[in-house]
Amino acid sequence: MHKINDTIASIKPLDVKAMEEAKIRQDNLTKPRGSLGQLESLSIQVAGIKRSPRPQIIHKVIFTLAGDHGVTKEGVSAYPSEVTPQMVYNFLRGGAAINVLARQVGAKVIVADLGVASVLERRLQLKGKKVALGTHNIAEGPAMSREQAICSIEAGMKLVEEELPKGIDILGTGDMGIGNTTPSSAITAALTGVDVAAVTGRGTGLSEEGWSHKVKVIQKALALNRPDPKDAIDVLSKVGGFEIGGIVGLILAGARYRIPVVIDGFISGAAALIAASLSPQVKPYLIASHQSAEPGHQKILEHLGLVPLLNLNMRLGEGTGAALGIFLVEASLKILDEMATFAQAGVSEKND
Amino acid sequence: MHKINDTIASIKPLDVKAMEEAKIRQDNLTKPRGSLGQLESLSIQVAGIKRSPRPQIIHKVIFTLAGDHGVTKEGVSAYPSEVTPQMVYNFLRGGAAINVLARQVGAKVIVADLGVASVLERRLQLKGKKVALGTHNIAEGPAMSREQAICSIEAGMKLVEEELPKGIDILGTGDMGIGNTTPSSAITAALTGVDVAAVTGRGTGLSEEGWSHKVKVIQKALALNRPDPKDAIDVLSKVGGFEIGGIVGLILAGARYRIPVVIDGFISGAAALIAASLSPQVKPYLIASHQSAEPGHQKILEHLGLVPLLNLNMRLGEGTGAALGIFLVEASLKILDEMATFAQAGVSEKND
Repeated sequence: MHKINDTIASIKPLDVKAMEEAKIRQDNLTKPRGSLGQLESLSIQVAGIKRSPRPQIIHKVIFTLAGDHGVTKEGVSAYPSEVTPQMVYNFLRGGAAINVLARQVGAKVIVADLGVASVLERRLQLKGKKVALGTHNIAEGPAMSREQAICSIEAGMKLVEEELPKGIDILGTGDMGIGNTTPSSAITAALTGVDVAAVTGRGTGLSEEGWSHKVKVIQKALALNRPDPKDAIDVLSKVGGFEIGGIVGLILAGARYRIPVVIDGFISGAAALIAASLSPQVKPYLIASHQSAEPGHQKILEHLGLVPLLNLNMRLGEGTGAALGIFLVEASLKILDEMATFAQAGVSEKND
Repeated sequence: MHKINDTIASIKPLDVKAMEEAKIRQDNLTKPRGSLGQLESLSIQVAGIKRSPRPQIIHKVIFTLAGDHGVTKEGVSAYPSEVTPQMVYNFLRGGAAINVLARQVGAKVIVADLGVASVLERRLQLKGKKVALGTHNIAEGPAMSREQAICSIEAGMKLVEEELPKGIDILGTGDMGIGNTTPSSAITAALTGVDVAAVTGRGTGLSEEGWSHKVKVIQKALALNRPDPKDAIDVLSKVGGFEIGGIVGLILAGARYRIPVVIDGFISGAAALIAASLSPQVKPYLIASHQSAEPGHQKILEHLGLVPLLNLNMRLGEGTGAALGIFLVEASLKILDEMATFAQAGVSEKND
């Protein structure tokens, strides 16, 4: 907990002066003021994050964190748990959706095992940060101990710190874990107070009947474990997951090191809820890449006051939405940096 | 009109077989079926357009068409008309927003003068397709003659045909013309039947008072010119613009040559309404890049049955939304082409 408290204490507000300078420049570029909408506001936000009126992005890193979930025993997912390690190997071979989109946007993908339920083959590119062999079944008891929850968050922070010397100008979050929409719905219900049914979706493809069962399992998990909404670590340990804790760590470290954090969909959103509950100061560092097809994600974005950049009805995770979001952040910074001003281009300004 | 009728007669439906093959491949890639939402459906649409189950995109071209509008005399725009030629030179020097975003996505920008109100300097990169020195004031009479309307559409077609030998795998539309939200609102009201006030926005930055005045000017133009909603060429000639006619030509030629047409915002949308009215067969070739902040754009998208990929509160035009849309189309095709299948990756499929 010492490391977490230390990190939280180091998170500072955005740099107002850099934001003002970026705003002045945006207003002098050859376009009507505000006409690029969110691309303009994004560039100003990133200027404040990076303390630079014309920030540059070179190193883009997406962290895809994997973990398994004991609650899959309850039949809450359409896929078997063995898919989690299979997909980890798919990531390492470059064959998954996140690899394709990361290549397109020029981002590095860092794959980490935070708590896959099997012992993975050692591979050079796989970051071993396993806290345990999957969580316990939250329908029968807490997902993990408080110590394990802290350990998972610290592991996420370490992933960022290990990569820092190579450079991280922007960070995307991603997840892989069969069954992990179930803990994400439980976390969302616990921290936002919204009804379980309103924050529970079909995951990777449940039937209507499967969905009703999933809602009941989550209600049971919350009634049994009684996570304390004022204690986000308690929520993570009672009904969370190791990869979710890892993403909390990515977010806290991102804010500490003044890196724009592009959050992916529902699972990353649940992690962002926990991170913002631990430290509201992280919020200005967050960029919501897309709105997931999972209904709970909208509640999370509303709760955090975030407006998603994309709404493509995606629900895959892995960091796929974050990859597309990174492209849009880059677009916003290129606009800020490369466009001509009215004076440079000899273009007349607005009539008054 | 011969050339237009010829083009319309050559537009064929999408290739169902290529779409079916693309769909089968999408369903076998290592992700839950449908989990990439619009990225999946986009790839299938483009497969049908390009008659290929795994289409490739190499040559990306954005056409930015410029024209002036006599109706600016009524004070409907916050910027003076002289900005139109100034921005054309800005495009040619690479300093505008469209240049920045086109560079980011690797697209070529073709700038054409369809009807700027001044004689432009001859520049190698500027395509001279001037129909006239700006339209007439639609508050006083028709924007142009029927012959000029046809001429502007044919000019747009020629732009595509001149570029075809160099390759166009995807086409983005764009516009530049001070005052051109006014004719676009008039076209939208005429062709959708929606009230003028509901399809009229602030353009590049009108006050509340300026907006009310703009609505009255458009109502006057429609009452005076009585465009026939069953005759889209009549609508274009009575209340349209030369760059809008040019974009109609881009769209018709795009569909004829089986090129995915990524339409930009409100002005391109008004052109798409005209194109779809001339030939409903163009609709499956259209991809709506974004939803503009201009309220009329939503009505257009609903009328055409198009779902926008982005909603970033943009309202600049130039093809800026189309550039971002081209990136997303490419993402969808890379997913289709590069991802591993379940069999290739040794990943288990869904439980049944």
